[in-house]
Order: sequence, then C-alpha cells, then structure tokens
Amino acid sequence: MGLLQDTLDIIAPVDESREAEIQRRLDNKTKPPGSLGRLEELARRVCLMTGQHDPNVDRKAVFVFAGDHGVAEEGVSAYPKVVTAQMVYNFLRGGAGVNVLARHVGAEVIVLDIGVEHDFEPTDGLRIVKVAHGTKNMAVGPAMSRTEAVRAVEVGIGLVNEFVQKGYGMVATGDMGIANTTPSSAIAAVFTGLPVEMVTGYGTGITEKSFDTKVSVIKRAIEVNRPDPADPLDVLAKVGGLEIAGIAGVVLGAAAARIPVVVDGFISSAGALVACELMPEAKGYVIAAHRSVEAGHLAVLGRIGHRPLLDLDMRLGEGTGAALAMNLVEAGLKVLKEMATFEQAGVEGEKVN
Amino acid sequence: MGLLQDTLDIIAPVDESREAEIQRRLDNKTKPPGSLGRLEELARRVCLMTGQHDPNVDRKAVFVFAGDHGVAEEGVSAYPKVVTAQMVYNFLRGGAGVNVLARHVGAEVIVLDIGVEHDFEPTDGLRIVKVAHGTKNMAVGPAMSRTEAVRAVEVGIGLVNEFVQKGYGMVATGDMGIANTTPSSAIAAVFTGLPVEMVTGYGTGITEKSFDTKVSVIKRAIEVNRPDPADPLDVLAKVGGLEIAGIAGVVLGAAAARIPVVVDGFISSAGALVACELMPEAKGYVIAAHRSVEAGHLAVLGRIGHRPLLDLDMRLGEGTGAALAMNLVEAGLKVLKEMATFEQAGVEGEKVN
Repeated sequence: MGLLQDTLDIIAPVDESREAEIQRRLDNKTKPPGSLGRLEELARRVCLMTGQHDPNVDRKAVFVFAGDHGVAEEGVSAYPKVVTAQMVYNFLRGGAGVNVLARHVGAEVIVLDIGVEHDFEPTDGLRIVKVAHGTKNMAVGPAMSRTEAVRAVEVGIGLVNEFVQKGYGMVATGDMGIANTTPSSAIAAVFTGLPVEMVTGYGTGITEKSFDTKVSVIKRAIEVNRPDPADPLDVLAKVGGLEIAGIAGVVLGAAAARIPVVVDGFISSAGALVACELMPEAKGYVIAAHRSVEAGHLAVLGRIGHRPLLDLDMRLGEGTGAALAMNLVEAGLKVLKEMATFEQAGVEGEKVN
Repeated sequence: MGLLQDTLDIIAPVDESREAEIQRRLDNKTKPPGSLGRLEELARRVCLMTGQHDPNVDRKAVFVFAGDHGVAEEGVSAYPKVVTAQMVYNFLRGGAGVNVLARHVGAEVIVLDIGVEHDFEPTDGLRIVKVAHGTKNMAVGPAMSRTEAVRAVEVGIGLVNEFVQKGYGMVATGDMGIANTTPSSAIAAVFTGLPVEMVTGYGTGITEKSFDTKVSVIKRAIEVNRPDPADPLDVLAKVGGLEIAGIAGVVLGAAAARIPVVVDGFISSAGALVACELMPEAKGYVIAAHRSVEAGHLAVLGRIGHRPLLDLDMRLGEGTGAALAMNLVEAGLKVLKEMATFEQAGVEGEKVN
C-alpha cells in the first residue's frame, strides 16, 4: 500500500476521555482554576494526544523543507529563485531567523532539500531528499505529478518516524521556497472556496502590480489544472509545492505517532490543510503557532479549526513562529509537571464564595 | 528631595534618533524587511531605551511584590486573605506559576513582602521590605497614607537600582495580594474616567453576586476618598495597594536606569499606570507583556499606550505573563545580534520588483 496509506490507516482521533482528569490535575495547582488560559489548554491537549501522564518534549525539532517553484518565473515574488538555495546555505551556517529562534528555545533545525533547483554537494547538516529540481510552472500545467506529490509527502512521514524513534517528543514545520505563498494561496482558495483575492497576500513584500499578477497567475493555475478539492493529493500535485508536500507529511506522521506538530505560518498551514483534508483526524495533533500577516492564513486556520497562539505580525516563514510557539507548549507542560498543588504548598484552595 | 523625586528628575524620554539606524541593521538581516514583526519592534525599542548597540538582557528578574488589602473584608475576592502569605511560602519553595515560568525563560524570581498582614520569619530568598501590615479598607477611608505610598514606591525604585548595579538588563513586575484586582479597577476608573462597571472583572473567579458587591465597593471607595487623578500619589494612597506602589516604583526605577521593564497583567499595569501618570516619559520603557482576561486591562494599556505582546487568556498575575514576554524580548535582541546579514550569508537581498 505504501507509507502514505499505511500512515493514514493508523491515524486515530485524539482520545478525549481523559480530559476531565487532566483538568482536575491542573485545577489542583496553586492558581485559580483556568487562570493560565491557553498554557493549560496546551498541557491538556498534548496529554490527550500522546496518551501520556507527563509528555516529554525535551527533544524537539523544526523541519525546514526547501523547494523551488516553477511559478516564480511569472514574477510573483520579490526575490529571485536563486535565493532558495542561498538560504539553504544560510540555514546550514546557523545564520537564518529560524536558526536563531530555534536555538533560543532549545530546538534543533533539520534542513531538507526536498526540491531545490540547485544541486548541493553533500554537506554536514543538509539532508538531500530531493524529489525534483523544483516544481513546474503551475500557471501552464500541473506543478508536479501525483507520484512526486506522494513521494514528497512520504519524505515528511519518514522523517517524523525517524525522529520519534530517536525520542523526539514534538516536531515543528518550516519552509523555504521563493514564490511559495503563490501555491499556498492556490491551495487555500481551492479548499476554502474563497475568492483568490481574499486568500492572496503580499508575501515577502511585492508591489501592487506584482500582487495583481500573482492573483491572476493563481486564477490561471486553478483554471488550467482544475484541482479537485475532494482529492487532496490532486490539489497538492497540481497547485502545490514540494516543501508543502513534505510539511503535509510531517503533520500526518506526527498524527500517526501521536505527538504534537507545531505548524508555522501560511505555507506550513497550507501543508497542514492538505494533510487534514486527507485525514481530518490529523487536526487533533496540530498546534497553530501564530497568525501570519499573510492574507489567507486565518481562513486556512479556520478550516483546520485552530486558533493561533501568537500574533506578532510575523511573515518570515522558515519555522520562526513555530519555534516560538514550541516554547509555549513546553511552558504549558511545565505548569502541569512542576507547579505545586494546593495540598503540597499548604495553600487554601477552597473558595470563599 | 528623596529617592522618588530624584528618580522622577532623571527620567528622560527614549531617544528615538537612532531608530532608522537600528532598522537598517535589522533590514540587512537575511529576511524580507519587517518580516519578524514585533520581534523587530522589541529589538528596536530596547536598543533605543538603553542607548546600546547590543543590549545585554542575559540577567533578568521578576519582582513579585506581595501585599494584603483591607478591602478584602468586603467580600470582593474568591479566596481568603491568608492565601497571600501562603502563596509567599509557595514562591519561596519554587512551586508557584511564576517560579515555573521564570525558570523556563531563565529569569530569577525575587519575592518581596511589601505589605503582607502576616509576619514572616527571616527566610532565605524573601526580602522583607514591609511598609505596613496590609492596606486599610478603602471602602471606608484611604488605603494608606501618602507617606506610606511614597515609601512603597521607593522600595521598587531602590530594588531596580540595586539590580541594575549588579548587571541585570531587564526587569519584570509581578504581584500577589488577595483582593488586589479591586484597587486596580479603582485606579483604572479614576485615571481613564471610564465607569467602574467597565473596568471591573471577575478576578480569581468570583460569582455574579460578588461582582456586584465589588463594583459597589469600588464606587464607594472613590466616593469616600475622592482621589484626584491629577495627583497620582493621591490616587495610589487612597485607592491603591502596597504591591501596586512597589510595581510603580519598579517602572520608574527602570525608566530612570534606561532598561526595559516588562509589565505583567492587570494589577501590574495599574501600577505602571500610576508611574506613567507621575511621569509620562516612563511609558517609553514599558513593555506590555500580555492581555489579561480581566475586564479593565485593555483600557489601562490604552492609556499607557502599549499593545500587549501575548494574548493567552491568562489571568493569574504573579508575573507569569511577564516571564513569557521577557522571552520574546530576548528573542528580538537575538535576531538583531545573531542573524546573518545578506552580505555575510551571500544571499541576494536585492528585490526583483
């Protein structure tokens, strides 16, 4: 059947039956019930996802998938395509935003060439899992074949399986790919049914003129390819991207392994949406890191059904928002694990009224 | 003149003249300009506050001021007054929410008895800087004398001076005091001019009936005491609290020392508001940690002029939100310090359009 189907077969809904028990544990901590808000929600959710009493997320990784996009030739980005490969070198040297923020929160950055146009020499720290030298221009035909899409999804699944085996307790998604807000907006439009204009933004900072081009390119891509929203792999192959497919795979792999997957901004959320359209039960394992400035992001999160944790006007991608959010997940779990109970602390928990 | 007046005298507005220079440094980093949003804002603001090229916030402390409130006898809180002292012991043993979250972000917790009704034995880690054994019941007269208010503010100032001397680069405020949302709402109402109902919330989780009591108690306190909003010390003394005064002092001390002060939730913001009414230039040194669930919080932040960084449905106080926000400030400074520039990374920063 293949890794993808096998993975879909074992994804189970999050078991909510222990929810009250976990909330009771939180309510015994020395604080008014519920007063740590979303930190408590995170603790509760991760306990339910994993089925564990004290989930261990000490080891955590941000997977940064890099891929190029044929559609870049339509002039939809502010940066030339070569920047994708240049940024991969930057990731490997530790100088990019995601490196800085992942170090800050104690997470590892795993850099993957899943579809960069450039041929990298074998380099320490770079995983070459290339499915193709970039996608084709979706404005004139499918971005990739269905087979390629499946292979790229399976790269993501395989990665999570490997890291879970090694003892990692939480994973996060990141992306690098010049022009990749364009396929992400196409995916958003196809699945949400919203007009392309409403789910398209300014990406890295394009002009009004380029924005108009971007919208018409996305419309053309959808017209030319007729992606079928009832067939998520069809959408992914026709108007997606290789890094987006890898991210979808990470979400599916995490759901199958019952660990939390912290999903970064717009591009990562497009990948997560593909995963959740393939298998809605995967939604329960997704933690939405932050609200990106990018226009279509909230619509995508709405369809996945998650409220973002952070809203810091960020729009860099790479996994930068996910790194910060992983730190909040960890904080929530520490509240559950490390805070004293009323009894332990000798504090009166009984309310006056 | 005294420490308070000396401190007010040396507070200077944040020097904005280097803003463009710092933004240029940020724009040279390998990311689209502005794409790290509020992390960039934090880096910029702290550089301007401190006047430094690379501000060092490695050493950072959360000051948790504990004080009791005479108004608790009106039945405005869900917990008995004795919990204030019990929670102080919990802080000292490291089991409270702020201990867990401060450890998580690498900050120290400094616990201060500035006005608890209980007499503590000298205990490791507890600073006894008691100005009074709690405030008096503001519903029948002033919470404290003007002299006591000034002394409590000066405790906060002195503390910052000591820690700056020791090399701390960032401070945060926290509070513990059963019933202390009541004086905080009174302070909010007096300075914003908003109706008491609009700036009063459910605190630790009171009933509807207690809420009605709380509103009428605050109204009575304002009627009985006639605090003068043009005289912030008058407001602080009549309808404030000792821990709120200590927090106001920390804000003034930080502004005088030109270091960032991360202000926690509603009670801390009431303290910060008193400080900023005394000296509006202090606003430039305030970082609003998070949006509390408590009703009056946004109105207070609006008057201080800061948008909160986090919105996690929290309402615990103690400095818990401030601890999490300090971690974001640190992240912003690391972006400035550690990210590679386009030149260093060999990445094309020139835009296509």
